[in-house]
Amino acid sequence: MPDITRDPVGDRGQTKLDATLADILGPKGWITGAGTRPWSRDWLDRHGEEPMGVARPASTDQVSRVMAACHAAGVSVVPQGGNTGLCGAAVAGQAGAVILSLSRMAGIDAPDPASGTITVQAGAVLANLHAALGGTGLMFPLHLGAEGSAQIGGLIGTNAGGSHAFRFGMMSDLVLGLEVVLPDGRVWNELRAVQKDNAGYALRKLFCGAEGTLGVVTRAVLRLSPAPAYRQTAFLALPDAAALVAFGTRLRAEAGEFLTALEFFPDLGLTLALRHVPGLVYPLDSRAGWYLLVEVASTSARVPLDDILQDVLEWGMQQGLVTDGARATSQAQRAAFWRLREEQPEGQRVEGAQLKHDIAVPPGRIADFVSEGAALCQAMLPGVRINPFGHLADGNIHYNLTPPVGMREFSGLGPELGLALARLADGMGGSFAAEHGLGRAKVALADALRDPVERGLMARLKRALDPSGRMNPGVILTPPDRD
Amino acid sequence: MPDITRDPVGDRGQTKLDATLADILGPKGWITGAGTRPWSRDWLDRHGEEPMGVARPASTDQVSRVMAACHAAGVSVVPQGGNTGLCGAAVAGQAGAVILSLSRMAGIDAPDPASGTITVQAGAVLANLHAALGGTGLMFPLHLGAEGSAQIGGLIGTNAGGSHAFRFGMMSDLVLGLEVVLPDGRVWNELRAVQKDNAGYALRKLFCGAEGTLGVVTRAVLRLSPAPAYRQTAFLALPDAAALVAFGTRLRAEAGEFLTALEFFPDLGLTLALRHVPGLVYPLDSRAGWYLLVEVASTSARVPLDDILQDVLEWGMQQGLVTDGARATSQAQRAAFWRLREEQPEGQRVEGAQLKHDIAVPPGRIADFVSEGAALCQAMLPGVRINPFGHLADGNIHYNLTPPVGMREFSGLGPELGLALARLADGMGGSFAAEHGLGRAKVALADALRDPVERGLMARLKRALDPSGRMNPGVILTPPDRD
Repeated sequence: MPDITRDPVGDRGQTKLDATLADILGPKGWITGAGTRPWSRDWLDRHGEEPMGVARPASTDQVSRVMAACHAAGVSVVPQGGNTGLCGAAVAGQAGAVILSLSRMAGIDAPDPASGTITVQAGAVLANLHAALGGTGLMFPLHLGAEGSAQIGGLIGTNAGGSHAFRFGMMSDLVLGLEVVLPDGRVWNELRAVQKDNAGYALRKLFCGAEGTLGVVTRAVLRLSPAPAYRQTAFLALPDAAALVAFGTRLRAEAGEFLTALEFFPDLGLTLALRHVPGLVYPLDSRAGWYLLVEVASTSARVPLDDILQDVLEWGMQQGLVTDGARATSQAQRAAFWRLREEQPEGQRVEGAQLKHDIAVPPGRIADFVSEGAALCQAMLPGVRINPFGHLADGNIHYNLTPPVGMREFSGLGPELGLALARLADGMGGSFAAEHGLGRAKVALADALRDPVERGLMARLKRALDPSGRMNPGVILTPPDRD
Repeated sequence: MPDITRDPVGDRGQTKLDATLADILGPKGWITGAGTRPWSRDWLDRHGEEPMGVARPASTDQVSRVMAACHAAGVSVVPQGGNTGLCGAAVAGQAGAVILSLSRMAGIDAPDPASGTITVQAGAVLANLHAALGGTGLMFPLHLGAEGSAQIGGLIGTNAGGSHAFRFGMMSDLVLGLEVVLPDGRVWNELRAVQKDNAGYALRKLFCGAEGTLGVVTRAVLRLSPAPAYRQTAFLALPDAAALVAFGTRLRAEAGEFLTALEFFPDLGLTLALRHVPGLVYPLDSRAGWYLLVEVASTSARVPLDDILQDVLEWGMQQGLVTDGARATSQAQRAAFWRLREEQPEGQRVEGAQLKHDIAVPPGRIADFVSEGAALCQAMLPGVRINPFGHLADGNIHYNLTPPVGMREFSGLGPELGLALARLADGMGGSFAAEHGLGRAKVALADALRDPVERGLMARLKRALDPSGRMNPGVILTPPDRD
């Protein structure tokens, strides 16, 4: 394997590639020097070395020619979508790479209503896809905080999940077909539009979540769902994490097919959001240990969502699992409930330094993780403030930390805390990288935790599909020269 | 790559391996000679060379030792589940291979109700899993005709679909974690129990549908759903395939979250089933071109399934899309409706020779496929009798042919008909191998149809994960020596 820790291309090679890319892409499509700034650093400003330039192709053919040219020159390529990722996968890990931004390839075809599918280019922004489907009776059921910037290609690359994944699936479940430009510039076109396709290995599933390390997704056929016509949203207060789990189990059993969201956060998260984010309104009279946003929806006007939700709420109150609650009576109130949940990251960001962990545990173990995780963290850093929020139905906890009151940092304990929490999740049959991926940020964690057999399988896949190792090196796996 | 068309092991090597396997597995676990008959041929009696023997391990450790011994001896291994596959993937393609039957590893753990998961061994029979979940309020939502014999490991290996896949997913969507014994005997243990796990490449998805060519699945964590408490089943008559598509589109829009089955078959299929299968009862007064079995279900007693179904039926009748219909008023009647659908293969089998094709097209193209497919087939073999039946909501058509009246065979046109139908599906964005896989039966078809880029990617994956090429050779890919 090539040594990728130093720039393999001499000045002369770089100049030649620069000219080739300028020729392929034209002045709008090939950006160098200070102009690369908007693409060169990640959203959290933690990753990103200076690239050789930013390629902004306008077609799959241009992507193919760019990839072939970089391949021939031995230059690394880093695909980039909306650059909203939290793990640094979409910016360069070493100076001199080419960032390949898909944002000019943002086409959205008309949906096929009888088949429930739509074909989109990788650079289409998720919110634009939602908007394009307005009034068609169909929806694309993936929703997450960054949907105003996140692009389909990046969502595929990271196998995004979000709030509705427990019902509608993650990106990998919603992708029917793909067009991918391979590391050497060849195009693999599998734009099939069917759910059932067992004609060989599940390549489409493999490219989902590969974080741009095996190829560049340029186009996808996505699976749509009927848009619900009716919806109910409730905001509830619960005493403790065990109540969250017990109430969530009952909700799934009683309202299984209507549930579209079950989002939780603790009082600390609410406190920080109310303190730092203007315009938030707390809808209940009393505060509690935990809060739960419940949403149910149906395509049919004949379903009494009101009564179904009411039944479960009454049961929860009788059991002492729910202490207070409110139902949204308007679209504005619904939006206000959601903002309390969605501004959790922002409240914590403004409070100061933070450590983000993206954990999943089996939903039945959430309360265990919350209590055991707190014990671990408090033992390592007494007074650390913990905000575990996320998606109750799939066990995905965004377990984010703020330093103890009066402290500005984590005394260098970040890696140690991360490893301890990851081990705890692992021991519960969970994952230390639930929906954000590994990127560059969690490769060391993966190296520390992965069974050597699993690491070996992943390294073999990487070598098989990217033999020269120049496709987003340093993401998912430690570069081969350090294997 | 080794030449796998001839037996690489001399008599002495074979004797030594025989002794090693007998030692590992004991007399109940290592079967040779005439005793291998029950495992050596596939269900349709079309594939299966004489194996060296049948290994019936009782534990993952035994599987690991068997694999290591076969690997060391250079002998091919063919994993086998319930041997209900239709493409010959579970029997030997050349004499002298070891068949590895998982049927003694049939353990089913208690479900985890708060997390909605269950852990099972690969040899567990699907119907036994359904039975084990009775009364728990949970269900495993995969159903197919062979569920009385099909085993979880085989269902994973073939990425089975079935009647409910459009709502609950295929096997690949229902597998959360896997334990797999690799070709060299090492064990990859990823028995995680969470939906969201983006800690690297989607290995669990890759092993689903790999048909035992990359390793042996020994255990899995499966995702469960809340069991519905109420159900409605209707049997409808429709004039033509276009009506099927239009009515199906409306049903999905109006009853999206309740639909659990939308199964169709034509009058020819009904005729053959009524002719050859005892005890079937046709429930309507008049016959029609097509029939549709609709099932809706809910976890909530408050959902008026009756009214919801009635609304759509009335709309369908007003539009002339539905000409007659009956609703099941008892469990016995529901079972009778389902038998009409499930005995489609049996009716056609008894009629005589048949050609089976497992096609998927986008659901909106089903009527086009039916009419264009008929034109193709009739041009090639006038009078050929076509029974396209299957799953309306995911576009999966079991497009099975019976020779013209008075003929016993297809005049050798089988491969030509298969290729023409596969090309037609491909051109519509569909698949020629929807839910049965490729096995040995469709490798030639895959070779004829696959884009070389796609074939190259699959061959690289195979070489990366099974470098010696002894893991179920000849399945999914033409053996490497003929690549």
